[in-house]
Amino acid sequence: MQNSLGIIEPKYFTFAEPPDKLLLESGQKCGPITLAYETYGELNSDKSNVVLIVHALSGNAHAAGFHPEDKDPGWWDSMIGPGRAFDTKKYFVICSNVVGGCKGSTGPSSINPETNKPYGLDFPIITIGDMVNAQKYLIDHLGIERLLCVVGGSMGGMQVLQWVASYPYMVRCAIPIATTLKHSPQQIAFDEVGRQAIMADPDWREGNYYDQGQPEKGLAVARMIGHITYMSDKSMEEKFSRRLKEKNFSFEFKTDFEVEGYLRYRGDTFVKRFDANSYLYITKAMDYFDLSGDKMLQKGKPVETRFLVLAFQSDWLYPAYQSQEIVRQLKMRRVEATYCEIKSTYGHDAFLLEIEEETHLIKHFLDKTFRGYNILREL
Amino acid sequence: MQNSLGIIEPKYFTFAEPPDKLLLESGQKCGPITLAYETYGELNSDKSNVVLIVHALSGNAHAAGFHPEDKDPGWWDSMIGPGRAFDTKKYFVICSNVVGGCKGSTGPSSINPETNKPYGLDFPIITIGDMVNAQKYLIDHLGIERLLCVVGGSMGGMQVLQWVASYPYMVRCAIPIATTLKHSPQQIAFDEVGRQAIMADPDWREGNYYDQGQPEKGLAVARMIGHITYMSDKSMEEKFSRRLKEKNFSFEFKTDFEVEGYLRYRGDTFVKRFDANSYLYITKAMDYFDLSGDKMLQKGKPVETRFLVLAFQSDWLYPAYQSQEIVRQLKMRRVEATYCEIKSTYGHDAFLLEIEEETHLIKHFLDKTFRGYNILREL
Repeated sequence: MQNSLGIIEPKYFTFAEPPDKLLLESGQKCGPITLAYETYGELNSDKSNVVLIVHALSGNAHAAGFHPEDKDPGWWDSMIGPGRAFDTKKYFVICSNVVGGCKGSTGPSSINPETNKPYGLDFPIITIGDMVNAQKYLIDHLGIERLLCVVGGSMGGMQVLQWVASYPYMVRCAIPIATTLKHSPQQIAFDEVGRQAIMADPDWREGNYYDQGQPEKGLAVARMIGHITYMSDKSMEEKFSRRLKEKNFSFEFKTDFEVEGYLRYRGDTFVKRFDANSYLYITKAMDYFDLSGDKMLQKGKPVETRFLVLAFQSDWLYPAYQSQEIVRQLKMRRVEATYCEIKSTYGHDAFLLEIEEETHLIKHFLDKTFRGYNILREL
Repeated sequence: MQNSLGIIEPKYFTFAEPPDKLLLESGQKCGPITLAYETYGELNSDKSNVVLIVHALSGNAHAAGFHPEDKDPGWWDSMIGPGRAFDTKKYFVICSNVVGGCKGSTGPSSINPETNKPYGLDFPIITIGDMVNAQKYLIDHLGIERLLCVVGGSMGGMQVLQWVASYPYMVRCAIPIATTLKHSPQQIAFDEVGRQAIMADPDWREGNYYDQGQPEKGLAVARMIGHITYMSDKSMEEKFSRRLKEKNFSFEFKTDFEVEGYLRYRGDTFVKRFDANSYLYITKAMDYFDLSGDKMLQKGKPVETRFLVLAFQSDWLYPAYQSQEIVRQLKMRRVEATYCEIKSTYGHDAFLLEIEEETHLIKHFLDKTFRGYNILREL
């Protein structure tokens, strides 16, 4: 495949012994913690070309290239590679699975060393701040002092904002996409219904299901709800309209409409690749997240991070007004911020689909930051 | 209570023997069928003052006044009574529970006379057309030849449109509120996820749960999804914002936010009053409903029904464009139609809450139709 990164080898980093246990925002400690991560491109000699990509709710470290067993590439492959938005001929790109996840990083499905059984609900509640603190350990481990860019959409965007809040001097530029400073009650409500669907499934067993198999039906329902919110009314109309699976109505409780079949399919495939407890932990982290007011940028502390804030017109799950509020907060603190609202009918999914527009905007912004950085270093 | 109708006695009408069995749109037959209904006000001598109110998904025949055991009045009480929008000093108001429902009318929880057990999934799939045909039996039974008005919101609005489609010469005026000519794929999708949540609950038992108690957890999840779609992003912000139940985050999977507590409460109370199988049947009827194109009004047949079409600005479940499409279809067929988009932040729930505005619009429209009708009769 042209411009593809080819086969990618997953990497793992574990930080284990005190004081390397992660002190969580809840006050609890967690460790040892393993982060699964991938890297694309080469770190340059002065380590000034690092792009950290942070993923959304159901994402993982596999952002680009191929794993030998998969026919599909990583989840943002069209953005990462030679000549692409995150040009691996110039940049060293890192993506790690969040703590709490289920794709190689430590989470509720991992073995608790104290019991030799999966954590289940003994895994402590984690926050977006905890996810970012864990990533900071990885960045330190790689010997990197500053990040050229932190970028991500949806929950990824929350981590972008959290990086600037927690480590402002480490982030040259930040690209939060289709995200928010805090979940609205509607966003919390959709997450909560998903959690209730999982916890209503008797196969959930208070989170201790790893011997018997996970609560597939509840998790599938949660995922179906999610999928409706990721699309727009218009994109569903364009994709499905009222087309039927068969010629006529079944007059039974079967799949009559194509959109029903699509949702069931999406639900059924999701439960094969995602852990129900991780779904609970990660959505909770999103709901707790709140960098509104002065919580992102403390007053009086100048921040040199440049921002490119992207939103999509048909995204009703993370509506554009939430991105505009990020920009407003930044501007009030005299932070350099560019806002762009991309025309799209794809809804929230647009951040994974509007590749051409995103490439155009991000490539230019990133190159300018990189060039500016090098010029400053030469002075 | 001022202008209240006081205690209301529910009534029942059963049509039983062939040919009075209801021939359904699916081709199946169903009967005997009982309809629970209530009436408010007095039928006038020439039976020209009849207002038929048709209810939404979770509604019932009890639209106004009080039942002795309840502390709350009927679901549209603020619209019905002496001096109210549907002024019972002038009009004879009828409301019946839909066939397929669970509040006195025959539905899946009713006893199947052939087995002496509840129908469960042996109950045939019903459509909005079937609901209206059953209502027609009731109207005939009451000796009424023409309806002054058919009015309802949401699924009620679908029945309004269906009345005009099925019995155009019987309807003097029609008031479809916050409704559509057909469900979009997004609307189907929300219904389907609700159904999946119910059917995923092992207590559902393929619909045969009447001995053991119904699938409360699944039905509660379905209702929670519904409630999110009935409110707007803004009304949730106004009602809940990010307020917590306790002072701090629980750092557990408990109810942290007020909006979560509200949803759980709404889910838990719903399962005490509504049958899960009825939820399946009625949502399916809504999804099948389609009067787009020429299906509502046949070409070349003049329709004298006057329309008042109402929509609400923040209603994203039944967006205003769907009401505008109803008006467009009517105007193209030279039907008299007035459209009004009411300013409201309440979302879809607005049709139950924006009483003052609705009263103002409906009262005038209804009185004008009634006066015009009487003038015509005197000529």
